[in-house]
Amino acid sequence: MSNPNPHVTSLGGGHGLYQTLLATRRLNPASITAIVTVADDGGSSGRLRREFGMIPPGDLRMALSALSADDEDGALWRRTLQHRFGGTGALAGHSLGNLLIAGLSEVLGSDQAAYDRIAELTRSAGRVLPMVNEPLDIEADVAGLDDDPRIMRPVRGQVAVATTPGSVRRVRLLPEHPDANPLAVEAIRTADLVTLGPGSWFSSVLPHLMVPDLVVALNESAAHRAVVLNLTAEPGETQGFSSERHIHMLSQHAPSVTVDSILVDNYAITTRTERGFLERAAATIGAEVVYRDLHRVDESGRPTYRHDPEKLAAAFRELAAS
Amino acid sequence: MSNPNPHVTSLGGGHGLYQTLLATRRLNPASITAIVTVADDGGSSGRLRREFGMIPPGDLRMALSALSADDEDGALWRRTLQHRFGGTGALAGHSLGNLLIAGLSEVLGSDQAAYDRIAELTRSAGRVLPMVNEPLDIEADVAGLDDDPRIMRPVRGQVAVATTPGSVRRVRLLPEHPDANPLAVEAIRTADLVTLGPGSWFSSVLPHLMVPDLVVALNESAAHRAVVLNLTAEPGETQGFSSERHIHMLSQHAPSVTVDSILVDNYAITTRTERGFLERAAATIGAEVVYRDLHRVDESGRPTYRHDPEKLAAAFRELAAS
Repeated sequence: MSNPNPHVTSLGGGHGLYQTLLATRRLNPASITAIVTVADDGGSSGRLRREFGMIPPGDLRMALSALSADDEDGALWRRTLQHRFGGTGALAGHSLGNLLIAGLSEVLGSDQAAYDRIAELTRSAGRVLPMVNEPLDIEADVAGLDDDPRIMRPVRGQVAVATTPGSVRRVRLLPEHPDANPLAVEAIRTADLVTLGPGSWFSSVLPHLMVPDLVVALNESAAHRAVVLNLTAEPGETQGFSSERHIHMLSQHAPSVTVDSILVDNYAITTRTERGFLERAAATIGAEVVYRDLHRVDESGRPTYRHDPEKLAAAFRELAAS
Repeated sequence: MSNPNPHVTSLGGGHGLYQTLLATRRLNPASITAIVTVADDGGSSGRLRREFGMIPPGDLRMALSALSADDEDGALWRRTLQHRFGGTGALAGHSLGNLLIAGLSEVLGSDQAAYDRIAELTRSAGRVLPMVNEPLDIEADVAGLDDDPRIMRPVRGQVAVATTPGSVRRVRLLPEHPDANPLAVEAIRTADLVTLGPGSWFSSVLPHLMVPDLVVALNESAAHRAVVLNLTAEPGETQGFSSERHIHMLSQHAPSVTVDSILVDNYAITTRTERGFLERAAATIGAEVVYRDLHRVDESGRPTYRHDPEKLAAAFRELAAS
């Protein structure tokens, strides 16, 4: 684990995983594997998923973009993958990278072959894997949608869950307990450092913990396993959720899960009381809370709610060496 | 002109240009430039043209495919560019290469930058240029659509012209007399060998001769200028047209045009009478008829109506050295 060139495996999705990968690639790692959620049903990904029955490509595309080579050609690939068609026509809003994944998947015969081909073209710093080799759905139990606040209603679909005006109590995958992608299991087992989060807790973080074989791999891995908390609660999904509630949700959705550390920005959580609650929650999953300066500052020196890749990398380096 | 590594410029569109480029790349040329028609309004190209107002990309994509590197990676790029989405959804029928051109054009700010980027990715044997830097339309005067056969009606659009049940008498571009792409003019002027055809006469061959500056460049170029006749009349467009009528149509649409040779398969035109008509027609545009074995034979040794790239290359080699 004190490997100066660690094997790093990062679980997540969306913008959170993108930021994490910008950090992990600074570790000079022996390998990077991004394990990506597969339940998106909105936007370009949702359209492609419905049209082709494919794994929604958007989160995998974002991970590939984050890992594209660190030079001019890599930057052009990043722009190309992330580009969205404009206008008001049939293609408007589609991501060019998503279309490329969809097309290459047909040409090469599998989604994984498409991701790997794009990784080759972009001279990627790592490999991206879907957590499960099929598209899934998220369903949430949501309170507060009726007059009687005790009534819970199921809300289905990532977009619907992310935008519900009610309060999400728990989520599940449909189908429940899916088989893990064996490549993802392997990448967790053989890593020196595994990261989970930051990101939308319900759509990018918790889904990984609802895949039984991923939890087993996480618990059995010799890697240092770090959960990265968000710098602020997301509007919508986890509005008003405390930090310790984020951690309680991990064990609520995967009762057996254990991790080594919870990485928290020392600016986001400052009071002794808050830190006490957080540390007690962390202890229930075997984890220590690690406070570090992680937030990006804007041009006028003010803190933002985004992680700074360099600061996050410094913290990862420390954890990988611990 | 006896350059053993000639600069070759090929004018055309569609499958005809594709075959020509498979031949020219065998010449070990110093450069290949494909100059491509821009009036397609059907299929994936037509949809993209209507959605984005862009130059219809299909014929340019086919030329890029033909020029993709001659190795495993190049073959994979060719399959990728030529792939069409299946299914019954919003993307069905779209060519992946066309979408890539459309997207890269938005990313890079111009269609030409998109073609050049794909040429770079595919380690292309040449460069592709649209003949004119804007989408155009074809309009034909068509006889035989009314009871009175003397009545001519205009039919507009490449698809409509290609599928009209009437008899096409002449075609024009809309807008008429467009400005040539300056890069195309330059490529004709500096070539050692310029080829025109084979291909759909109305949609892939004649349009080049309706761009005044391309005709001037062709007439003034020191290159050997060869027109490659089709092996058979196309169903629809030129059904029943004789070979000499194909040549008469060149001068009908570009009265000043001169070329050096008309390359004809010696199997397609065998009788002395036919050859006499053809040679007299050729003489009117200053050309000699060159008969060579050009057709591909199928597995059982039977002649087909497609050009054999190796045979066509041998003829080009001879003309470039003449």
